[in-house]
Amino acid sequence: MTESTVESVALRAREAAQDLALATRAAKDAALYAMADGLVAATDAVLAANGEDVSAASGNGIPEAMVDRLRLDADRVAGMADGLRQVAGLPDPVGEVVRGSTLANGLELRQVRVPFGVVGIIYEGRPNVTADAAGICLKSGNAVLLRGSSSARRSNQAIVSVLREAAASTGLPADAVQLVPGEGHEPAKALMRARGLVDVLIPRGGAGLIRSVVEESTVPVIETGVGNCHVYVDKEADLDRALDIVLNAKTHRPSVCNAAESLLVHADVADAFVPRVVGALQEAGVTVHGDDVFAAHDGVQPVTEDDYAREYLSLDIAASVVPDLEAALRHIRTYSSGHTEAIVTRSQDAARRFTAAVDSAAVIVNASTRFTDGGEFGFGAEIGISTQKLHARGPMGLPEMTSTKYVVTGDGQVR
Amino acid sequence: MTESTVESVALRAREAAQDLALATRAAKDAALYAMADGLVAATDAVLAANGEDVSAASGNGIPEAMVDRLRLDADRVAGMADGLRQVAGLPDPVGEVVRGSTLANGLELRQVRVPFGVVGIIYEGRPNVTADAAGICLKSGNAVLLRGSSSARRSNQAIVSVLREAAASTGLPADAVQLVPGEGHEPAKALMRARGLVDVLIPRGGAGLIRSVVEESTVPVIETGVGNCHVYVDKEADLDRALDIVLNAKTHRPSVCNAAESLLVHADVADAFVPRVVGALQEAGVTVHGDDVFAAHDGVQPVTEDDYAREYLSLDIAASVVPDLEAALRHIRTYSSGHTEAIVTRSQDAARRFTAAVDSAAVIVNASTRFTDGGEFGFGAEIGISTQKLHARGPMGLPEMTSTKYVVTGDGQVR
Repeated sequence: MTESTVESVALRAREAAQDLALATRAAKDAALYAMADGLVAATDAVLAANGEDVSAASGNGIPEAMVDRLRLDADRVAGMADGLRQVAGLPDPVGEVVRGSTLANGLELRQVRVPFGVVGIIYEGRPNVTADAAGICLKSGNAVLLRGSSSARRSNQAIVSVLREAAASTGLPADAVQLVPGEGHEPAKALMRARGLVDVLIPRGGAGLIRSVVEESTVPVIETGVGNCHVYVDKEADLDRALDIVLNAKTHRPSVCNAAESLLVHADVADAFVPRVVGALQEAGVTVHGDDVFAAHDGVQPVTEDDYAREYLSLDIAASVVPDLEAALRHIRTYSSGHTEAIVTRSQDAARRFTAAVDSAAVIVNASTRFTDGGEFGFGAEIGISTQKLHARGPMGLPEMTSTKYVVTGDGQVR
Repeated sequence: MTESTVESVALRAREAAQDLALATRAAKDAALYAMADGLVAATDAVLAANGEDVSAASGNGIPEAMVDRLRLDADRVAGMADGLRQVAGLPDPVGEVVRGSTLANGLELRQVRVPFGVVGIIYEGRPNVTADAAGICLKSGNAVLLRGSSSARRSNQAIVSVLREAAASTGLPADAVQLVPGEGHEPAKALMRARGLVDVLIPRGGAGLIRSVVEESTVPVIETGVGNCHVYVDKEADLDRALDIVLNAKTHRPSVCNAAESLLVHADVADAFVPRVVGALQEAGVTVHGDDVFAAHDGVQPVTEDDYAREYLSLDIAASVVPDLEAALRHIRTYSSGHTEAIVTRSQDAARRFTAAVDSAAVIVNASTRFTDGGEFGFGAEIGISTQKLHARGPMGLPEMTSTKYVVTGDGQVR
């Protein structure tokens, strides 16, 4: 039954995707502006639905931090609307000619960006993802099937209802944006099995969600977001700069995937740097989980293998002294999740070796790991940060939400 | 046991991939030339091993066409060597800067091509794929795990043994090229489950093989090759040109994925074109499976739903008259495998509508479907033709065998 329900929304999405693929930028932008205006106008209805979700969550004993992520207010609704307007302002990726040439036989070859078709998004928590994802998918010409968490069900329904009506009011198909209906885990599982109907699935959420989608999906998946990010302080680091970078990477926003989770310090600068960085981190409220050198300082917890591998997402950091750059590279190779690693160094050779040898989505020299972000990279919108190597790696903006096709024109060529 | 064997070759491949990722173009090209020379020098040993495979296959009652695909001779070995030398002559995709900019805060952002790491290839039949795939993977900096069919086991072992020795002789790791050992289906299945060790899996072969890899793999897959390609003859077609294109697309090499399998003719030109095309196809030995209009001609078989959906790979073609371009588009949407579709028309509007509305890897105007090919597109080498939308679509050359990473350099930037 669930499978057929998901199949029926997916079939409607495919129909809508045919129209969306051919929609002009002007038509898509008009829909995005109408969606933004619609959300602002419907603020009361959205907040009423959200209030019911928040009450139910509080009643269910869901932790306060999670209830807080669920909670909307008028500012957050206005923020969703602003996000949609920003996406309207971005260039349309569809139709971009990625490469082109004229072949020896006169055939004209062009590789052109086209939408995927139907994109499935499985996500947890914050209802603003609903509007963000719908906007990015619509602008890139894709129909979207949204599967949010059940705790945000009423909020998501209210938001999607506004978005659908706005799309339809400008002449685009309402089915460009649909929620996947149904209770429990089955609808998400049916979405993962909808190969042929859904072109790509993007899970956004914790490591457990992402792992289950990757393992169970027959639809192609873009894996996002788990970040066990490292900062390596080289023997030739400017130590003032290193201190700024470590503190920023760890404490600026510890709950996000581009926050630093591990600190590696070259042995030659350990005496000069370890006391300073431990003091500064502790002053900022960070618990340091360190090796022997670090643990000689008051308040430092002994580090475990598990600490090295963890994405804390909290004011904790694993810390270790390494004998040289190669040992830092081995440590990163062993424990990194492939998201972002940074080196602090004045040495051109060390920077070159680090950027060549580290196999992560982003490798940063002399700056905070916090810069791995679609907004910071200037993409204007971001659907997530891919930590896989296929299709897209790193922050994904609008072009990453497209495929391509080859258009070949001739005048009768045969082989 | 199998899983651990596959794990051990995959771990060795990962080690090799670290070296390969940093190997210069000069080092990789030297290895490719050594491999080519090695194959030519070892022709006798390769042919002896191949002879054993061919005898065993003949003894096992394998159809003669398949035995023929398995068979090597001195020319085919020389052809493999030439293929490796051609790959050496192509530009190195690794290190190409795909995009770059300086951000407002002074951070320098570059998106750079890097190898995937470890590529798994599961393939049937022809042993020349072994050398082709090894060459393309090595040039793109990837270690390769090859799982060929058991009927080609001895041939593949002989070829891989030469390639490994040649790589090692030039200082690259022998484990850049490995066969996945073991009997039966289990080793391939273990390869499909080696997520984290293998970065991407490319199945090359029939529809059954590809479907099973897509469904069972937890490693990201690039789907290749099934082609139910259509030629649509528009009411404004030049009918001489249309005849040439249909004949070439169907008969030039019927066993390959870019051969035409279906013919659609606009009703307005049916009277003028159907008798000519039926006659010409039949003269070329093609069995036409046609609708009522076609079946009015001698020797035309009545077409079935199944015919419309089939990839014949033989001298057969499904044929139907359609009332207009939109009906042709609906037919294609229903039955196409998303490989290649062609329109023959003099109308700019019809060509524009067809290329926009057809959602296939390649859309061709006034030329044969046979041009969808890495060699024809000027890529110099091809690992297969992707019919999926994620990562690569259409013929895949060297750049398609890479991922990217972002390299960000600053002078102390924090957020």
